[in-house]
Amino acid sequence: MSEAVEKILGNYAGENPGVIGNLRRLMNTGTLAGTGKMVILPVDQGFEHGPARSFAPNPPAYDPGYHPKLAVESGCNGYAAPLGFIEAIAHEFAGEIPLILKVNNSDSLGDPGQPCSALTSAVDDAQRLGCSAIGFTIYPGSGFRNEMYAQIRDIIREARDVGLPSILWAYARGGDMSKQGETAVDVIAYAAQIACQLGAHVVKVKPPTEHVWLDAAKKSYENIPVGTLEERVRHVVQSAFDGRRIVIFSGGAAKDRDSVIEDIRGIKAGGGFGSIVGRNAFQRSHDDGLSLLRDIMAIYKG
Amino acid sequence: MSEAVEKILGNYAGENPGVIGNLRRLMNTGTLAGTGKMVILPVDQGFEHGPARSFAPNPPAYDPGYHPKLAVESGCNGYAAPLGFIEAIAHEFAGEIPLILKVNNSDSLGDPGQPCSALTSAVDDAQRLGCSAIGFTIYPGSGFRNEMYAQIRDIIREARDVGLPSILWAYARGGDMSKQGETAVDVIAYAAQIACQLGAHVVKVKPPTEHVWLDAAKKSYENIPVGTLEERVRHVVQSAFDGRRIVIFSGGAAKDRDSVIEDIRGIKAGGGFGSIVGRNAFQRSHDDGLSLLRDIMAIYKG
Amino acid sequence: MSEAVEKILGNYAGENPGVIGNLRRLMNTGTLAGTGKMVILPVDQGFEHGPARSFAPNPPAYDPGYHPKLAVESGCNGYAAPLGFIEAIAHEFAGEIPLILKVNNSDSLGDPGQPCSALTSAVDDAQRLGCSAIGFTIYPGSGFRNEMYAQIRDIIREARDVGLPSILWAYARGGDMSKQGETAVDVIAYAAQIACQLGAHVVKVKPPTEHVWLDAAKKSYENIPVGTLEERVRHVVQSAFDGRRIVIFSGGAAKDRDSVIEDIRGIKAGGGFGSIVGRNAFQRSHDDGLSLLRDIMAIYKG
Amino acid sequence: MSEAVEKILGNYAGENPGVIGNLRRLMNTGTLAGTGKMVILPVDQGFEHGPARSFAPNPPAYDPGYHPKLAVESGCNGYAAPLGFIEAIAHEFAGEIPLILKVNNSDSLGDPGQPCSALTSAVDDAQRLGCSAIGFTIYPGSGFRNEMYAQIRDIIREARDVGLPSILWAYARGGDMSKQGETAVDVIAYAAQIACQLGAHVVKVKPPTEHVWLDAAKKSYENIPVGTLEERVRHVVQSAFDGRRIVIFSGGAAKDRDSVIEDIRGIKAGGGFGSIVGRNAFQRSHDDGLSLLRDIMAIYKG
Amino acid sequence: MSEAVEKILGNYAGENPGVIGNLRRLMNTGTLAGTGKMVILPVDQGFEHGPARSFAPNPPAYDPGYHPKLAVESGCNGYAAPLGFIEAIAHEFAGEIPLILKVNNSDSLGDPGQPCSALTSAVDDAQRLGCSAIGFTIYPGSGFRNEMYAQIRDIIREARDVGLPSILWAYARGGDMSKQGETAVDVIAYAAQIACQLGAHVVKVKPPTEHVWLDAAKKSYENIPVGTLEERVRHVVQSAFDGRRIVIFSGGAAKDRDSVIEDIRGIKAGGGFGSIVGRNAFQRSHDDGLSLLRDIMAIYKG
Repeated sequence: MSEAVEKILGNYAGENPGVIGNLRRLMNTGTLAGTGKMVILPVDQGFEHGPARSFAPNPPAYDPGYHPKLAVESGCNGYAAPLGFIEAIAHEFAGEIPLILKVNNSDSLGDPGQPCSALTSAVDDAQRLGCSAIGFTIYPGSGFRNEMYAQIRDIIREARDVGLPSILWAYARGGDMSKQGETAVDVIAYAAQIACQLGAHVVKVKPPTEHVWLDAAKKSYENIPVGTLEERVRHVVQSAFDGRRIVIFSGGAAKDRDSVIEDIRGIKAGGGFGSIVGRNAFQRSHDDGLSLLRDIMAIYKG
Repeated sequence: MSEAVEKILGNYAGENPGVIGNLRRLMNTGTLAGTGKMVILPVDQGFEHGPARSFAPNPPAYDPGYHPKLAVESGCNGYAAPLGFIEAIAHEFAGEIPLILKVNNSDSLGDPGQPCSALTSAVDDAQRLGCSAIGFTIYPGSGFRNEMYAQIRDIIREARDVGLPSILWAYARGGDMSKQGETAVDVIAYAAQIACQLGAHVVKVKPPTEHVWLDAAKKSYENIPVGTLEERVRHVVQSAFDGRRIVIFSGGAAKDRDSVIEDIRGIKAGGGFGSIVGRNAFQRSHDDGLSLLRDIMAIYKG
Repeated sequence: MSEAVEKILGNYAGENPGVIGNLRRLMNTGTLAGTGKMVILPVDQGFEHGPARSFAPNPPAYDPGYHPKLAVESGCNGYAAPLGFIEAIAHEFAGEIPLILKVNNSDSLGDPGQPCSALTSAVDDAQRLGCSAIGFTIYPGSGFRNEMYAQIRDIIREARDVGLPSILWAYARGGDMSKQGETAVDVIAYAAQIACQLGAHVVKVKPPTEHVWLDAAKKSYENIPVGTLEERVRHVVQSAFDGRRIVIFSGGAAKDRDSVIEDIRGIKAGGGFGSIVGRNAFQRSHDDGLSLLRDIMAIYKG
Repeated sequence: MSEAVEKILGNYAGENPGVIGNLRRLMNTGTLAGTGKMVILPVDQGFEHGPARSFAPNPPAYDPGYHPKLAVESGCNGYAAPLGFIEAIAHEFAGEIPLILKVNNSDSLGDPGQPCSALTSAVDDAQRLGCSAIGFTIYPGSGFRNEMYAQIRDIIREARDVGLPSILWAYARGGDMSKQGETAVDVIAYAAQIACQLGAHVVKVKPPTEHVWLDAAKKSYENIPVGTLEERVRHVVQSAFDGRRIVIFSGGAAKDRDSVIEDIRGIKAGGGFGSIVGRNAFQRSHDDGLSLLRDIMAIYKG
Repeated sequence: MSEAVEKILGNYAGENPGVIGNLRRLMNTGTLAGTGKMVILPVDQGFEHGPARSFAPNPPAYDPGYHPKLAVESGCNGYAAPLGFIEAIAHEFAGEIPLILKVNNSDSLGDPGQPCSALTSAVDDAQRLGCSAIGFTIYPGSGFRNEMYAQIRDIIREARDVGLPSILWAYARGGDMSKQGETAVDVIAYAAQIACQLGAHVVKVKPPTEHVWLDAAKKSYENIPVGTLEERVRHVVQSAFDGRRIVIFSGGAAKDRDSVIEDIRGIKAGGGFGSIVGRNAFQRSHDDGLSLLRDIMAIYKG
């Protein structure tokens, strides 16, 4: 038993053993097993951005078998993808690495007017495919807020009933929110709070910038230090029930190795629980991606 | 058995013993136990206004464990919060203090166009977490009126079936209602009436102002004394089935101690059943908040 | 057994004994028992117009216990109200006087754009509370026509299955209908026809005026006498399946005693089955209201 | 056993015996029993156009008992009406003549913006009332197309499960379709095809005109003879699965006897399966209506 | 056992034996049995374009019995059609050739504003009629994306539960997509990816053009060869999980024989799994259509 992991699980007291068990499984898998930190490989870009934009930089990645293999090799804690990608590999990888079924998705060809992912799979797909958790994207700020929150309300309950924890991608956007607002520190902290209040077991947000978007929040931030990524991550973690919920950070668009590594150091220093690294992993060549993932894990472990 | 409490419960004759029992529990808990008055600590501001605006004034309040502890220490009748906050503490506080699960919530990042809270948890969450009541916000005046009333119609029935009373936050807004109209005495009285007609067991409204908003109602108010808070509270209580339903009043934005105390005296004098005090409690330092809550209870008890 | 009542019930042959039994109960209660006529006391104005506009003229009427008592004292056939008012008194009055649960309601603070009442209670509330019928408002002419007709389709079937008849308030409005059109004789007759076609057991309409609203209907009315209220009522009753469905008429806004009485005489003369008298009863002092209700019943009985 | 009827029923091979049995009953009832032709009396005009416009020309028709009696007397194959009219007479006429419950209806007082009938009764009403089929109106061309097609998808399956065939009124309208387009030969043929593809057992359309509405279809019609009603009916029957589905034609607005008779001859000559005659029957005096219906049947029988 | 077929089925490992069995049945039927290639005859044009535009070029095609007979004679792998066409022939052809029930359809008379087919039949219709698969059209790019994806999410699961595979027609359109964009190579590849991610077992797309529509994708296509149909088909197959999902191509509007044959050669060369040939088959005379289908199969077999 890992003390670090059990301490984190203590914050989920009251949850049923099935959910606790799967959270424990996530944290006790891979290179970071037992550290209480996690790195997850998510591959929903084929759906969200299209196949060529996602996989042409590294063509073996067109194959759904590429990713879970990379996740296992690199020692990730879990692998997250939409239904089709999981279906194509579950018979081989279920039980090998925790699979996370992303149950809603958007594409870039057209949308319903305001940000709102489509429901694309269900909790019983996750069960059938041997998954350890479900993933769901909310877009706080969207005119379809109520539809999304009500959907995740039901999905979290359904997932819990069968022992599956829920991971929320909390990405504010829509309404009159500016592009800059989407990663503003107040907005990211607020999105994390909302995800926690909705009952998320794990929350994924983007690394916040120094910007404060909501006028009503500006005064509050006068005395909150948000000058460095470390400080901003600390504030986000605090906003996620004072550190009592697991918050992990995405890597964003593929970028140079040094920037990635610098971000990870900031997240670690600020008390973040880990990262979810997609394009920065699978859009590099296999060896580069593997090596980067291992370096990231080394930082978290260090 | 408290005579005051049993007299109030007499107004709920016809309700099942489960609901009566939980109402009795609410009124027989804390400092005001047995007086027929109640003070509830509600903490949904993290969801509604964001974490920094809510908790930065008193950073320990970021911790979901802070609030129920304050509620118990100060002798509140109950503690109300959204799903995440209740889940984080239910294993420790269920049975210790009546928990009220707020099953719908809004945030300040974006909305569906007209006021309408999102469904964020359910009656079976309330049961699972050992709660004693559910809370729900309606916005009379909103273009989504029908959706909200139909939702609470179903939720009240579902809650009753498992012995849980329903507390309605009745906040008129939306449509062509002015900001001033939202707290107009006719509007507050009307919102209280609607909540009661919808089957609320406890109604929460804001303290009304002297303003009368609906043109059609102006003539009726020519002969109704609404010059003082006491008179306005009396009118609202009368509008809530002539005092046969429990009506409590919110404190509104954090303000100076004297204003809070003065409001409480007015509510007490007008026959209000109590208060729901959030920001004025948890945005003060622990000791100040505790002391203010105790002073408020002393007034109701006095 | 009353011959008059059994003759009317003969028009409902094919209905189940539960529904027939409750219709018989309605017609065999109070002063008009056995006459085949009925006067019902409805009190939904607290919800529809607000408490002060409704009850300030006669403050004891704020108390939900006032109305069923008045209904019993005056010898009404039934008492109709929204959920909250019925819940407050059902334990005392169920079995004493037929209770009619109004399962949808509107308020005057705001609305969904086109007329459409919100669902505010359900058939199983009616059962739980010992009611003898349910009431539902349709607004023919509204852009939400299809929602309302589909709702009542389901509610009527659900109510029938548990032996409860359905009373439809048929008030045309919305779309491009003028205020004058709402009470035009062709519109009232059409609304009554629609309610009957939807399966209503009892239809409530407003007393029609001489106006004809639909251009397409003007030719048809050239040879239909509609100069007096008696003639118009006769036409409406004919439009309600040639007198084979019970049609009752509302009293409208409170007005002077003589006008009320004159209306009742017209309704009686035209073959109307009775009246539903709200504001004209409870907005008068107790004794005046009681005396007016008794006078109305005397006309129907005479 | 009638050879003509059994030959038609052969086109429905694969259907369950309940549905086949009710289709057989429809075709083996009345004057045209065994001929494979049918004349149905439909009376939904009270709902669709209002009572005075529908029944004032022949006041006995206000009585719901008038119509099924006329249908029996004249030897119709069936009687179709909305819920209220069927409920009023089912106890007398079920088993006497096939009853067809029209489960959706529109009125002329207002509508949802694009053509879409409201659901007004259900398959279990049809069962409860001893009906032999259900009727449903679709409006191809309407912006609410998807709602209507999905509704009938479910209703046809529900009806089949209890042995009831489905009759579709296929009336194209809405969107940018002109009044002239609604009866254009290409539109009528298309509407018939859609109804058949949706699984209708019997399709009802209006007699088509020579007009071709869809630009994309104009070329196709250069070589299709549509100069006479006979030719157009033949094309419509061909469009309804090459004659493998029963297609019947409505009579339209009441008109002079000779025009009606001429239409019927055209329909007969073109291979139409029969007519549905409403206003031309019940808006005439009883004797005239009866005599016209008999003449129509004589043509089909001849 | 065919090695080619079993190799393809290996990509569906994890699917239940019912689904695998029906996919095997599709691939082991007709002229191309055992080759891993397939040609399907789809006839939904009666619904989508109207009867005259579809069938007037070859009038025997009005008869629903014409098409499955042609499919069997020509050696197709399956026959796909909407409910009505399948119902008319299932009793004769179920078990003879795999039937594919198209469960949603559009028509050309009017629509809901953004592309979205109506649900027109259901999985239990497919079972009742002895079908081997269901077909469903998605329109990525449409404002109704979320409705369609959520529908197919549920239908795929329902179909799988009873052993039926799902074939997705993936046709991007709607929103601000240009006509040219609908067949752009990036859009077709993206649509194929989406269909696979949604869990489609077989994907049908149009043959792509050289155009690239999404600005964000232009850079990615600088290094992807898309100059010939062969190259574009190869890219689409790669985009469909690197060849691990069956992708077939439609023929489009009826055109001259040589163009059809040339397209087929390109699809074959690029690694496409087959074709779905409708208008090019049934809008020719019987003998011409038959001969063209046989020539197509000869290419795939060659």
